[in-house]
Amino acid sequence: MITVKQTKEKIKKIENGTIVTPLGFSADGVHAGLRYAKKDLGVIVSDVPANCAAVYTLNAFQAAPLAVTKESVAVEQKLQAIVVNSACANACTGEQGLKDAYQMRNTCAEKLNILPHHVAVASTGVIGELLDMEKIVKGIGLLSPSSNKEKAEEFQTAILTTDTVMKSACYETKIDGKVVTIGGTAKGSGMIHPNMATMLSFITTDAKVEASVLQDALGSITNKSFNQITVDGDTSTNDMVVVLANGKAGHQSLTPDHPEWNSFYEALRLTCEDLAKQIARDGEGATKLIEVNVSGAHTNEEANVIAKQIVGSNLVKTAMYGADANWGRIICSVGYSGVALNPETVNVSLGNIQMLENSQPVSFSEEEAKAYLENDTVEVYVDLQQGNGIGKAWGCDLTYDYVKINASYRT
Amino acid sequence: MITVKQTKEKIKKIENGTIVTPLGFSADGVHAGLRYAKKDLGVIVSDVPANCAAVYTLNAFQAAPLAVTKESVAVEQKLQAIVVNSACANACTGEQGLKDAYQMRNTCAEKLNILPHHVAVASTGVIGELLDMEKIVKGIGLLSPSSNKEKAEEFQTAILTTDTVMKSACYETKIDGKVVTIGGTAKGSGMIHPNMATMLSFITTDAKVEASVLQDALGSITNKSFNQITVDGDTSTNDMVVVLANGKAGHQSLTPDHPEWNSFYEALRLTCEDLAKQIARDGEGATKLIEVNVSGAHTNEEANVIAKQIVGSNLVKTAMYGADANWGRIICSVGYSGVALNPETVNVSLGNIQMLENSQPVSFSEEEAKAYLENDTVEVYVDLQQGNGIGKAWGCDLTYDYVKINASYRT
Repeated sequence: MITVKQTKEKIKKIENGTIVTPLGFSADGVHAGLRYAKKDLGVIVSDVPANCAAVYTLNAFQAAPLAVTKESVAVEQKLQAIVVNSACANACTGEQGLKDAYQMRNTCAEKLNILPHHVAVASTGVIGELLDMEKIVKGIGLLSPSSNKEKAEEFQTAILTTDTVMKSACYETKIDGKVVTIGGTAKGSGMIHPNMATMLSFITTDAKVEASVLQDALGSITNKSFNQITVDGDTSTNDMVVVLANGKAGHQSLTPDHPEWNSFYEALRLTCEDLAKQIARDGEGATKLIEVNVSGAHTNEEANVIAKQIVGSNLVKTAMYGADANWGRIICSVGYSGVALNPETVNVSLGNIQMLENSQPVSFSEEEAKAYLENDTVEVYVDLQQGNGIGKAWGCDLTYDYVKINASYRT
Repeated sequence: MITVKQTKEKIKKIENGTIVTPLGFSADGVHAGLRYAKKDLGVIVSDVPANCAAVYTLNAFQAAPLAVTKESVAVEQKLQAIVVNSACANACTGEQGLKDAYQMRNTCAEKLNILPHHVAVASTGVIGELLDMEKIVKGIGLLSPSSNKEKAEEFQTAILTTDTVMKSACYETKIDGKVVTIGGTAKGSGMIHPNMATMLSFITTDAKVEASVLQDALGSITNKSFNQITVDGDTSTNDMVVVLANGKAGHQSLTPDHPEWNSFYEALRLTCEDLAKQIARDGEGATKLIEVNVSGAHTNEEANVIAKQIVGSNLVKTAMYGADANWGRIICSVGYSGVALNPETVNVSLGNIQMLENSQPVSFSEEEAKAYLENDTVEVYVDLQQGNGIGKAWGCDLTYDYVKINASYRT
């Protein structure tokens, strides 16, 4: 793993970058009519078949588009396009749902004049309803992908459901002296939890990297980024992260043995973490991003478990909404995380305001704490003082608007 | 296990029964001044030392009163009194907290002229603040326990925090021709989840039963009742269930070999289930009780896991609040419960309205479903059709008021 210093030197955040910033990618998003007015169908295209990697929801009920995408990827671990609709998840739709996902894939392949198994399919929205295939087919006909930033934003908009903002991240590094760019987008704001909750993310890069190597990197990075966010603890039927690496940057093929492998890995990790945090901040009804940092655990895995337990607690989330420095709820979450720990040595701080030292309250200014908790980003620090394990997780506060949005989602 | 028919014949619910209905118990509740006006300190007393059983929170941070109660019980598995305060949990209070819990125990023993190790101590309320011992000691001095029903209700009131109603249940059966009564009370409405969430329950009986036998029964029953309710998934530092069996009913000592053991077990189970459902219904901000019934699992344990996963889902809970027949969220919860299952054979009904058959949507009347979901009790049925395992769990809807209560609990 490269150090932070090296990261700063070698990796640059591209503020206005998108999925079409890496060489050889184009995109589009259109209004197919699945929703009343919002764009609801989009595509990302690579000029050439790209090596790919993907991770999927662990929900036992996987939606039809996941089956079709897995089948596409299995043929030669290459993809050239990803076609995505919002409004309808095509989940719990049986035989007909599967036929529809195949039709969506094949229609897109025909439209772009590429092989069907080079197309991935993704859907997000209400579960248990069939896709309106007439609209999907017509919508695919309207797609006109290009590498304009505006087109990327139309894609980014088309994949949203209850999200309030588009999500986008772009990082650049150098490999063999060549500029390598990674661009990503994501959707997701509810049903967000470990292991690919209702969340889609699509990442493009012009790096050259074998599919199996890319898959290992994506798996490891997902566990530190997308799988460490939670909005409501619900893991959906449809989620996936797909990375396309089309090799257009022109460097030697990357493996973990390459001296600059870590620069690529870290740029990909930063892209995923950036998107994950954007999703958490845009959690349904959220007013703030909560970042929990756990240190002093026996292992990184245990630190991650505790961090996610804290950030997923409804009581912590409501306290954050109320700007209430209720550290009791934080320590309580630590205690029921299932991780064996010494209950006598825990330190807790909100921002730089310490509240608990060796599991005992220390006096602090309630006013100062309240002021800190009114920021739009709140950092929680928990140090178990029992080992060297560290972990992070991200989430958001639980608000009236979360209830409002979810008590009336279908209507 | 006795059948339902036998249960009906042999076990009677006593509608107005309380913890003082079994022979030889008295109680009281007073205003010690920990809260502005509400009663906040109470005691249950047995005329004679009673055999006891107890289960405690699994939270790694166990509050001081639990340590003291465990020490009392360990001496001879007998208790004669339980002294309880609300408003302050005496958790994360270190050495001083432990001293305070001992002082609370000893003051109560002195007041009642019984042995200190025959006294259990329980606290519930805010974490991280010290008990005001002057008020506790003064309050214990005010206690004047008797076996009037009014006194039992004063106890029931004194232990409440954010609860909106007192909880009470009472069942009667016959052993060796003698009437045996079980009475119970509980508090808890938030931070309610598996394994003794912020929940206290105290159960009295005049049955004669060895402590070790009672402990086994309580452990088994707790897993089917108190541990199958969830309000917000948070497990607290303070929770316990204590059963006192003083033997005053005058029958032969009960063991599982006694021909009428099942009558006692079932009466105790009904008492616990009744209280658990009252807690779930009174969940913070709740407008309705949700009961989830899972059948067709490989084992009862797996059925229980799935039932609790469903009833704990924020998305299911908000849909119930909105009277939205969103079975997609139910099936989604089944899918991420971690239980291995065949995703093709699941049936889902709300009440008697079927929505999913073999994992496929069936048409139903949305209006009828909405009307059903506006009841104050909603039953969810999930049949996996994969085995004979059955399970149940109880919870409540997630509402604006839940957020309101918890965004401002300390203030």
